[in-house]
Amino acid sequence: MKRFGYLITFLSAFALIFSASQATAAPKMTEKEMKEGAKIYFEECAGCHGVLRKGATGPALEPKKTLEMGTDVLAVFIQSGTAGGMVPFGDLGILNEQQINLMARYIQQEPTAPPEISLADMKATWKVTVPVDKRPTKPAHNKNWQNFFGVVLRDAGQVAIFDGDTKEKLATLNTGFAVHILRVSASGRYLYSIGRDGKATMMDMWMKTPALVAEIKTCSEARSIDTSKYKGFEDKYAVVGCYWPPHLAILDGATLEPLKVVSTRSYTFDTNEYHPEPRVAAIVSSHYSPEWVINVKEAGYIWLVDYSDLANLNVKMIEAERFLHDGGWDATHRYFMSAANARDTMVVIDTKTRTKVAKFKTGAKPHPGRGANWTDPKYGPVTGTVHIGEAVMTVWGSDPAKHKDNAWKVLYKVDFEKAAGVEGGGQLFLKTHPKSKNVWVDFPLNTGEDTRVSLGVMDINDIQKVEMIKLADRGRVVHMEYNKDGDELWVSVWDQKGEIVILDDKTRKVKKRITDLRTPTGKFNIYNTMHDIY
Amino acid sequence: MKRFGYLITFLSAFALIFSASQATAAPKMTEKEMKEGAKIYFEECAGCHGVLRKGATGPALEPKKTLEMGTDVLAVFIQSGTAGGMVPFGDLGILNEQQINLMARYIQQEPTAPPEISLADMKATWKVTVPVDKRPTKPAHNKNWQNFFGVVLRDAGQVAIFDGDTKEKLATLNTGFAVHILRVSASGRYLYSIGRDGKATMMDMWMKTPALVAEIKTCSEARSIDTSKYKGFEDKYAVVGCYWPPHLAILDGATLEPLKVVSTRSYTFDTNEYHPEPRVAAIVSSHYSPEWVINVKEAGYIWLVDYSDLANLNVKMIEAERFLHDGGWDATHRYFMSAANARDTMVVIDTKTRTKVAKFKTGAKPHPGRGANWTDPKYGPVTGTVHIGEAVMTVWGSDPAKHKDNAWKVLYKVDFEKAAGVEGGGQLFLKTHPKSKNVWVDFPLNTGEDTRVSLGVMDINDIQKVEMIKLADRGRVVHMEYNKDGDELWVSVWDQKGEIVILDDKTRKVKKRITDLRTPTGKFNIYNTMHDIY
Repeated sequence: MKRFGYLITFLSAFALIFSASQATAAPKMTEKEMKEGAKIYFEECAGCHGVLRKGATGPALEPKKTLEMGTDVLAVFIQSGTAGGMVPFGDLGILNEQQINLMARYIQQEPTAPPEISLADMKATWKVTVPVDKRPTKPAHNKNWQNFFGVVLRDAGQVAIFDGDTKEKLATLNTGFAVHILRVSASGRYLYSIGRDGKATMMDMWMKTPALVAEIKTCSEARSIDTSKYKGFEDKYAVVGCYWPPHLAILDGATLEPLKVVSTRSYTFDTNEYHPEPRVAAIVSSHYSPEWVINVKEAGYIWLVDYSDLANLNVKMIEAERFLHDGGWDATHRYFMSAANARDTMVVIDTKTRTKVAKFKTGAKPHPGRGANWTDPKYGPVTGTVHIGEAVMTVWGSDPAKHKDNAWKVLYKVDFEKAAGVEGGGQLFLKTHPKSKNVWVDFPLNTGEDTRVSLGVMDINDIQKVEMIKLADRGRVVHMEYNKDGDELWVSVWDQKGEIVILDDKTRKVKKRITDLRTPTGKFNIYNTMHDIY
Repeated sequence: MKRFGYLITFLSAFALIFSASQATAAPKMTEKEMKEGAKIYFEECAGCHGVLRKGATGPALEPKKTLEMGTDVLAVFIQSGTAGGMVPFGDLGILNEQQINLMARYIQQEPTAPPEISLADMKATWKVTVPVDKRPTKPAHNKNWQNFFGVVLRDAGQVAIFDGDTKEKLATLNTGFAVHILRVSASGRYLYSIGRDGKATMMDMWMKTPALVAEIKTCSEARSIDTSKYKGFEDKYAVVGCYWPPHLAILDGATLEPLKVVSTRSYTFDTNEYHPEPRVAAIVSSHYSPEWVINVKEAGYIWLVDYSDLANLNVKMIEAERFLHDGGWDATHRYFMSAANARDTMVVIDTKTRTKVAKFKTGAKPHPGRGANWTDPKYGPVTGTVHIGEAVMTVWGSDPAKHKDNAWKVLYKVDFEKAAGVEGGGQLFLKTHPKSKNVWVDFPLNTGEDTRVSLGVMDINDIQKVEMIKLADRGRVVHMEYNKDGDELWVSVWDQKGEIVILDDKTRKVKKRITDLRTPTGKFNIYNTMHDIY
């Protein structure tokens, strides 16, 4: 490249002469550095800041701002994080000093849009590894398959299937990279995964050994997948929610054949400005109509997408709040409660009336996952969320039928600093089960070395009393899931030599450890996922 | 600019070295030429080829294709047009030789997207010139206002209001540039215009002298506007359909205050490829529900947009055909029939069942305007279209209730070459009225000097017999409209010194000429537009 040196000098001068609006030029980067920057940005940054760096859970990182801050200041943020929830990539050892410097320079460059992906592009990646007529019509084994668990092995790009009764590993199946979630078809036989790289796979729990039966890459970045669960449409469709391109890909539920693509590029609900990248965050499948409930994140709309007639697709676009992320059902499965985490807000949709019924403030950056529902001795049915931005659990009423005065109001908070000495935030999930008296919370992104390998647990009848249980001496303890009977809690130790820790829910004691797993994160029990039990 | 000459040489070399995919460099253009090219492209080319030059009524004009064709070949097309409907810009004297050469080079450059326009941008252009409380609550004059005509004075950026009874010009009101259509509110008192430059205006027919009461610029390019006509929503909303940005702007019907913007950027209905510019073509206001029927042109979808609840906007996206353009109602106002002109196809939507009911081929590039409905002595109720691509009228059955076998089938054509010696196409409109026995057609883009200043007219009881009536010796005779009683036909002579020619419908003789009008084009009778009579 040396012989182009003088050309680059000329080009820089040229740029300076003509770009009056841009006072500072972006720091130089080699082609190799740009490539590495793009890879790290995709894996670690894009989730919160957006592919086009227009901001979401994290702030916008466009050159007009980053150039003013400069390499040194940006490097400090990347090293040490912020109280608002920015991950301390240096302090946690995720990025080294050279990588931090590189990323500080990378985010001063102009962002470029990745390529579009059409139905034909998707089709070219589509593989049916076990055709429908080669699959069994009833379970080909006598195992208690509704108590199987799919466990994400994040960095391995795999999902392991465990028998929840015997704790035996039945299969390790290749999926996309860093699978974000698993979902289950209405019948429960199919388990669907979506990788952060946009690769969707489906696995059949009825085969003699659970196996991959189809796969497709529907986008270059994705976070969500769900299935058609309404009567008459069981196991018929799957839908992938993409981050880039910002679209929905509707797939055949039995083969993952791509059927239809729907763009989510749209205007923000409040200021009505065009947004080039309104990403699809959480999707749930309505129990009241043949519809998917879809968070169109940056635009701040919740879409109800009717899958009963794809050629005449009906979409109801409900004004909600910006930066919608995760969420789940109340105990009756009528109300979808979603976090707009960068706005510290929960939005509630009634899927029976198909309208928004409430919007209320929580703590800093709520992150409920699918949330947790229990019956409070004083307030009746409630739902809670934890927060990325502070170590607090916020709890609100979620039973407008019988506890109208409490519904969609924050009833109380549990402050983990006061109750258990936890400093900072970094929480991701909370979990309970209809048969349990415990509410469990994790702290995987917390900076406290002991905290991030511990779970907090509360009795629903004495909710302000928090017991901290240390489960590992390395990695991060993250994501809880119950077994079918609701008497065991499965937890991950997210580490290159990771584990699943199985606790007895009643005694809160470790029952078993499954070791030698590469970066286990999310775990999904077939029965609980199939029936939206959380 | 001379001192940058060496730099430009270096840059060109640089581009050649690095752009392996692009064999030929675009011909050089000065900044001044680029500006002129952009202006001419917007005014003359963008309508058919799209702002981003991805094609619609005309083919795509992207550099990968135009660079291969080169300046000389492209210049020939611009000079002489094509049989398929490309306007012979040189032959018609619209562009001179220097401009043709400039445009041939311009379309070899990379297209650039014009700026986005947000609700705040719109609001900054919004003016209420007569507040609602300063307007009369009933007509402030004794004129027969339902027989007023709004007449577009295209190049003047004005609309003239004529009293259809007295033929007196009541007002000349400033509007956007090259107003494309006028529409009327449910009550009939408000006349709305939309300029090709995206400027919408509203005029009040009840004021002592019809006057402009509000204006707003909702986009940089637009073609359509309509109003909320369903019971309970009379005069409540207006909606502008934009070409760029490709969006809908929903406005308050009394003030034009912008309320909501809805993007139409989406995937094509057939191949499911992302299209950055699916423009909004024709809009009609449903008589069966509080919905607008909206042609999303390049994507090939007809959207039903429910205006009864803007915060929970329901959009039904009906797969139709690509390059939807113009269209209108059948005689019962239940079926919307739309031309997909680059696909030589008509699509029929049932607004009662809210689904597509038919799709059939016509001739080359159908252009019905709003179409024309009459009762054929043999076939019953029929509808027709003329064509840009050939001098033919296509007629199909449009009464599925009582003439089911004929419905949505082409029953016959009238060939104007055979019947009247017309060569080539270039037709834009046809017109009749429930009280008339005549069907009138124009030929404004035809290359025949006599043809383009003549109307063709047929008796519905002897449809294959065409009388050609020459109405001018210069300009182009275009667009017909009836008066309220259906016994007079108003026609424009589109010329810098233009006219409106008023014909007695029965005798087919000229009754009156209104002269000294700058480029009159579309004319809209209040009563007929209010009640969708055509």
